[in-house]
Amino acid sequence: MNSETLNYIGRIRTPNKTTSDCPGQARPENGTSRIEVDETFLPALKGIESESHLQILYWFDKADRDAMQRVPKWSKNGEEYGVFALRSPMRPNPIALSTVELMNVEGNVLTVSAMDCIDGTPLLDIKPFLNQLERSGK
Amino acid sequence: MNSETLNYIGRIRTPNKTTSDCPGQARPENGTSRIEVDETFLPALKGIESESHLQILYWFDKADRDAMQRVPKWSKNGEEYGVFALRSPMRPNPIALSTVELMNVEGNVLTVSAMDCIDGTPLLDIKPFLNQLERSGK
Repeated sequence: MNSETLNYIGRIRTPNKTTSDCPGQARPENGTSRIEVDETFLPALKGIESESHLQILYWFDKADRDAMQRVPKWSKNGEEYGVFALRSPMRPNPIALSTVELMNVEGNVLTVSAMDCIDGTPLLDIKPFLNQLERSGK
Repeated sequence: MNSETLNYIGRIRTPNKTTSDCPGQARPENGTSRIEVDETFLPALKGIESESHLQILYWFDKADRDAMQRVPKWSKNGEEYGVFALRSPMRPNPIALSTVELMNVEGNVLTVSAMDCIDGTPLLDIKPFLNQLERSGK
């Protein structure tokens, strides 16, 4: 098999109505966002309140999946870079990833430090953050 | 739409033949792994050699996607935790995530610090690592 089916497990709530409203990255100084997990998955949240930081995986459903290269804002001379060398939403599998601070848990709703996506963005997964680079001494 | 199709974009090469051979997490002290990106995506790697660390997204194709809770090894009294509070491969969308050091790039093959999956695990995405927590002062 060379493909898989991903199912949406919730939605991310932000004040951003369009992609042009979105900041380039999740930034705590932009306030908070809400993650609404589908109630079906409530048992899968058990124990999450003891985590300080989470990695959120979500889906950039408006992304161009055929893009191979892009010109990032910081590019000199308009040089293109490969999408695997960029965090652009445009990529073959547009899975977005942000590390956020977990601020509150109320039932199936998590309040986290501000994310970078439009309101209603589909949620794919939530993982407790493991500081691998801290462990490896970076 | 409530689901999406993910396409494999390559394979991860490790010495681990079965899931019981796999360490619990990607750990640099376990040596190196190879990431073989499908040649179709060679243009998408342009510029990646200047990154020191990458976030690799891959697919745990042997995972139980119906699991909601698991008993982690460190659990006291056999208490169960929700899969979103664990990094267990068992989860609704079994997307695996490791942060690794990039050691070499040769065409479509990346050599990185050791990953935690079996040989041949499907690759989904590669992103340059952005140390958000360092920026936010954690």
